[in-house]
Amino acid sequence: MSGKLLLPEIIELIDMKDFKALKEIISEWHPADLAELISDLPESQQFIVFRFLPKNLTSTVFDFLEIESQKNILLSMGKKEVASIINELSPDDRTSLFEELPHHMVKNMMLLLNKEEREIARTLLGYPEDSVGRLMSPEYVSVKEEMTIEEVLEKIRKYGSDSETLGVIYVIDDDGKLIDDITIREILLSSPKKKVSKLMDHKFAFLNATDDQEIAVESFKKYECYALPVIDNDGFLIGIVTIDDILYVAEEETTEDIHKIGGVEALDDSYLNTSLFELVKKRAGWLVILLLGEMLTASVMAFYEHEIAKAVILALFVPLIISSGGNSGSQATSLIIRGLALKEFSFHDWWKIMKRELVSGFILGLILGIVGFARIAIWQSFSGIYGPYWMSIGFVIMFSLIGVIMWGTLSGSMLPLLLKRLNFDPATSSAPFVATLVDVTGLIIYFTFAHMFLSGKLL
Amino acid sequence: MSGKLLLPEIIELIDMKDFKALKEIISEWHPADLAELISDLPESQQFIVFRFLPKNLTSTVFDFLEIESQKNILLSMGKKEVASIINELSPDDRTSLFEELPHHMVKNMMLLLNKEEREIARTLLGYPEDSVGRLMSPEYVSVKEEMTIEEVLEKIRKYGSDSETLGVIYVIDDDGKLIDDITIREILLSSPKKKVSKLMDHKFAFLNATDDQEIAVESFKKYECYALPVIDNDGFLIGIVTIDDILYVAEEETTEDIHKIGGVEALDDSYLNTSLFELVKKRAGWLVILLLGEMLTASVMAFYEHEIAKAVILALFVPLIISSGGNSGSQATSLIIRGLALKEFSFHDWWKIMKRELVSGFILGLILGIVGFARIAIWQSFSGIYGPYWMSIGFVIMFSLIGVIMWGTLSGSMLPLLLKRLNFDPATSSAPFVATLVDVTGLIIYFTFAHMFLSGKLL
Repeated sequence: MSGKLLLPEIIELIDMKDFKALKEIISEWHPADLAELISDLPESQQFIVFRFLPKNLTSTVFDFLEIESQKNILLSMGKKEVASIINELSPDDRTSLFEELPHHMVKNMMLLLNKEEREIARTLLGYPEDSVGRLMSPEYVSVKEEMTIEEVLEKIRKYGSDSETLGVIYVIDDDGKLIDDITIREILLSSPKKKVSKLMDHKFAFLNATDDQEIAVESFKKYECYALPVIDNDGFLIGIVTIDDILYVAEEETTEDIHKIGGVEALDDSYLNTSLFELVKKRAGWLVILLLGEMLTASVMAFYEHEIAKAVILALFVPLIISSGGNSGSQATSLIIRGLALKEFSFHDWWKIMKRELVSGFILGLILGIVGFARIAIWQSFSGIYGPYWMSIGFVIMFSLIGVIMWGTLSGSMLPLLLKRLNFDPATSSAPFVATLVDVTGLIIYFTFAHMFLSGKLL
Repeated sequence: MSGKLLLPEIIELIDMKDFKALKEIISEWHPADLAELISDLPESQQFIVFRFLPKNLTSTVFDFLEIESQKNILLSMGKKEVASIINELSPDDRTSLFEELPHHMVKNMMLLLNKEEREIARTLLGYPEDSVGRLMSPEYVSVKEEMTIEEVLEKIRKYGSDSETLGVIYVIDDDGKLIDDITIREILLSSPKKKVSKLMDHKFAFLNATDDQEIAVESFKKYECYALPVIDNDGFLIGIVTIDDILYVAEEETTEDIHKIGGVEALDDSYLNTSLFELVKKRAGWLVILLLGEMLTASVMAFYEHEIAKAVILALFVPLIISSGGNSGSQATSLIIRGLALKEFSFHDWWKIMKRELVSGFILGLILGIVGFARIAIWQSFSGIYGPYWMSIGFVIMFSLIGVIMWGTLSGSMLPLLLKRLNFDPATSSAPFVATLVDVTGLIIYFTFAHMFLSGKLL
């Protein structure tokens, strides 16, 4: 179970061309460990190890590989080997591999599929991207309600070997319409003579082939199941989706959220597999928009130029004030975006959330305001740097902190809710976006308090 | 399948005390839909609906409920009902419920368990928090290698009804040590007379009861399985963990990451279930630390006070410069934190990542620098606001943007890697943390370029 530890030894065996020892070692490994080993090897050596796998394991190991390694190995293979691998791949895994391959490669591979598999592949790729159809496998076991458990077990034994899962068996009527699902648990625990109809409760969850994959993720969470049947618009059973594919979709969605919170457009691939050009492209857009937004700070500052010239000391605290607002905004926005993603609350709870954030913001602002005031008082007592009006300056800092932090929590929490309401992705309300928003308004808050406390003194 | 849509109607039935109609409607629902309905109801009405559930569904629906609703319903129940519910709960779900209940409630409930269940509950709660033991169920089916498939099916039929899963059957030796796992698929597809030993390959993945739950999440991902056996230090099979509990753990870890990226300490509960006091506590710590960090900006600004007094115009661009650095840092840190979480790369790839980020940072900086310079050139041509040295000012802005953005991407990407290397959580390198770091150094970069281009002119 420790692929990583043995990596250098394996590489040495390959370098020494000691393929006998290599073959012997890897024959004892779990397919998942073998897949991990292959992914960790340099690209040029991946195919070497793959070639020496025990014959009965190649397609299992291939299934476990990440798509990058799958691609790499396919490119090193002869036509015949490619044909055998992709014909044996399960239909849903094949769809997700084809999705990642360049168009001309998919075209060539389609020709290598046998007639039946090609038909299946073409149908699945015919569903829109990000739809349930793309995750679906048409291989499942279906039974009729008049069958006995014994007959069901017999049917599984005969036809079940290709089925994507044997955890759930589907009951269809004579037309092929889905009428119930029965778990293998119920079947195994029933006496062999019992009829399927006796186990039925006509309560079943299902997906539609054209549903968005996000809906599938939600359904799997809600029904806490390992597989869900997929029907077409007329209720006919056309396939199943299993939880492993759903996990991958859910993980991708979360990655997208995290990237967006950081102010990056969602990458299509992993960080290291994304080209430098793509990486810059996904970041430049938001950075430029944010820069244009930040330019408003220069305008606001220019508006108060006269005050700054009179009391340069005001400029010193600008970064501190605006950053504190941005930080509290980041906190609020990440709390709310995640809560929305987990469906802990919805837009309708905005008033409850606003109250919480206003109170939290006030307390947080008060704490930071007191720390800020203390900082000025302490520096003053040591150095007298702030002059006779140090206390007024302290109050400006304190009240500004309270103001910008309340404003930060408020906009950081309400913006994602508002985006959700307008059917945008709430995660677009990224930490940098909220920070920029708070920077501009934060300056206005700051200089307003400065006017209030320092007019006739420093101003 | 549409619990949410019917919510107002259900509430109306409760208000009208039309329990007969209520009972009739809910008797047709899927347990997961019933659980969703109950969770969506106001707390005072949850128990009413629960009471009218078909008797054979109560424990299934209770299992589907979120822990908050479970708690609420238990509190509304009599002792006898509580006893029946918690004795029927599966051991792993009971552990996670007990984890969330106050100590005195757990103590009372322990007394309501029958002897056998109490023993199980006590053992499971004896494992450290966040260990695999806390997710474990001791209910599984184990067989010996000399048994036939027919005998296995017979054993499942007799003893399998309590088992947490029937998807995998475990083979143990005469001492009770785990020696293999066999999927129900292999069993169902084999002829009844075959011996278990013929199906064995002695390759199996497992968890240790004292392993951290994070390890469990990784193993489930790697082996793409629905259940894993748990052994003790001597290799004895003591329980199993199923994927539904793992999904919950994985989701919690991601939530923690997202909160940390936003600069919030991980909440123990969902946002709305967290008390206001807790919410402030989880945010105040970081905000104060960041404020103390930001105070360095005031010191840096004070150091350049003389320059600002001479050329107030310099102050105007301070927010713009430092925020741009913070934004590019947020982007980098969220990309790297997520990549680390998904194990797309590790600390050892730091050099590869650093090169990418330096190049990306330079290009991004150049783009923003040009936009910044253009902004000044355009304003100048309209208003002449920046005076005779506008081009030098433009260069200061341009080169500062290149500098701070490169510095932002560099520290945003290297900090999470460094934290990981030092065995801290990389997500601690939050967007606000990186922004604060970049603010302080960004000011130094800015004023250095100002000196370079404006000495003898404005300065």
